Amino acid sequence: MTTAVGYEGPLFLGIDGGGSKCRVILTTADNQVVGEGLSGPANPLRGMKVATDSILSATHQALTCAGLAHRDIDQLVVGAGLAGVNMPEYFRIFSDWQHPFKAMYLTSDLHVACIGAHQGGDGAVIIAGTGSCGLADVKGEIIEVGGHGFPYGDNGSGAWMGLQLVHHVLLAKDLLGPATLLTDLLCEELKLTETLALVDFFMHATPTTYAKYAPLVFAAAEQGDLIAAEIIRQAAAHIDAIALRLLSLNPPRLSLIGGLAQKLVPYLATEVQSRVTPALQAPEFGAIWFARQRHPA
Amino acid sequence: MTTAVGYEGPLFLGIDGGGSKCRVILTTADNQVVGEGLSGPANPLRGMKVATDSILSATHQALTCAGLAHRDIDQLVVGAGLAGVNMPEYFRIFSDWQHPFKAMYLTSDLHVACIGAHQGGDGAVIIAGTGSCGLADVKGEIIEVGGHGFPYGDNGSGAWMGLQLVHHVLLAKDLLGPATLLTDLLCEELKLTETLALVDFFMHATPTTYAKYAPLVFAAAEQGDLIAAEIIRQAAAHIDAIALRLLSLNPPRLSLIGGLAQKLVPYLATEVQSRVTPALQAPEFGAIWFARQRHPA
Repeated sequence: MTTAVGYEGPLFLGIDGGGSKCRVILTTADNQVVGEGLSGPANPLRGMKVATDSILSATHQALTCAGLAHRDIDQLVVGAGLAGVNMPEYFRIFSDWQHPFKAMYLTSDLHVACIGAHQGGDGAVIIAGTGSCGLADVKGEIIEVGGHGFPYGDNGSGAWMGLQLVHHVLLAKDLLGPATLLTDLLCEELKLTETLALVDFFMHATPTTYAKYAPLVFAAAEQGDLIAAEIIRQAAAHIDAIALRLLSLNPPRLSLIGGLAQKLVPYLATEVQSRVTPALQAPEFGAIWFARQRHPA
Repeated sequence: MTTAVGYEGPLFLGIDGGGSKCRVILTTADNQVVGEGLSGPANPLRGMKVATDSILSATHQALTCAGLAHRDIDQLVVGAGLAGVNMPEYFRIFSDWQHPFKAMYLTSDLHVACIGAHQGGDGAVIIAGTGSCGLADVKGEIIEVGGHGFPYGDNGSGAWMGLQLVHHVLLAKDLLGPATLLTDLLCEELKLTETLALVDFFMHATPTTYAKYAPLVFAAAEQGDLIAAEIIRQAAAHIDAIALRLLSLNPPRLSLIGGLAQKLVPYLATEVQSRVTPALQAPEFGAIWFARQRHPA
């Protein structure tokens, strides 16, 4: 099997498709990275057309990168880790996609993040970014927690921390709670001081918007703000609870990834901190491991 | 000034316009109720056309009730208490409305609720329903708290309690928290047991949907559920904080209204409970007081 420009053996494409962006990597049979691509959301909850357009756009970038033609897409063995396909309905919809690849192996973005973090080996991963969730994959047994969405879930995430921030600032504005540094930092950042202007700003805020202001909570806590410290304590307690649940499977490794991970680690329980190991590879590489492990040689 | 059917003096129309419905009452100059009407949302945040259509529809019902012609609308002195007009932008938009009435006096739905509860006298009111908010009106000084919206505000409300319920049930489903009676009651009520089915149900839930399940929290607490009791304790603490803030103005009366009010009162602090007095009239009557107090004799 040889493509237009003569790579030997099958080509593997790894897809990390999240709610805001889709990242792909293209490798040869002997694991050389020859292309990559980046596009918009690849979460089927946003609609199948948006998701498949994002995937195809990023794939074409990767093919071009590798000096391949668009028609070589039918040579690709694809591992796709997509947000949302943990829901059976979306797994089914995506499985029915008449994709243009040689083969496609489908799982969740969280699962490929775990496989990548441990380079194809067993382990557990917690994502603490805009949302929060965790997965352990040990001897074929999988535990998955969280990732249910906002505001009823995703506790300890950036969106959750931003929501607590706005909540406390509005309490302070109503004189129902103390005005602390959190109020100053948020009003300064938004260049807004009136309660109604703040309400107007957050009235239709997405989780991404809330998460954008989570770093202010860390900034305030570092300057001794007690309410900020309490928000972080609660966030860390939730991440600890996820970690302890995943550690019940005895994974050989546990990695914390996502935009808040590094900031949160110092606040986690000692027993959790001592188990945290660096993620070895990015989720899109995990997607390639996933495809390789399933594709007939 | 005499209308088609010969009522003496001006006719007053009181409007209580909320986010889900608009209720109006029509009275004669000597306070006899001669008509009423009920229609959909009259909150300008849903769009001016929706709001004014609701107001006019309910007004025409009230005119018909009173044996008056639609053209008699230009005889009405109107007090309008509308959700959303506490925001200056919406107050301005509504003030610019080329209304068909003889005169219109505009304020918030919360304000007319307070005036109605105390039959035109000074006092304070707390609404604990889908949302939560409070207002005190004492010697011309007004304090207004809460009512900022969901999920960052409206703590202690039905929507907030429903959100805590869903949050705790999902934690239990993930084995991150105890499965209590709350889990049984919610799953039974929804006839759903799978985590993903619950998530799917609440994914785009409105505050009204969350509030619908708040009574389950009271039901569980009455049967000794500790998590339910803690949710109610936090809700009551928030309502207490609103009450104490309003009582700082020394209002002669304090009323609690809204769908959760009666259920919450037993959980409030003794010092707050002892101050709670029944609301004397409904908000639409408060709107008539508001117009009467401002309309030149």
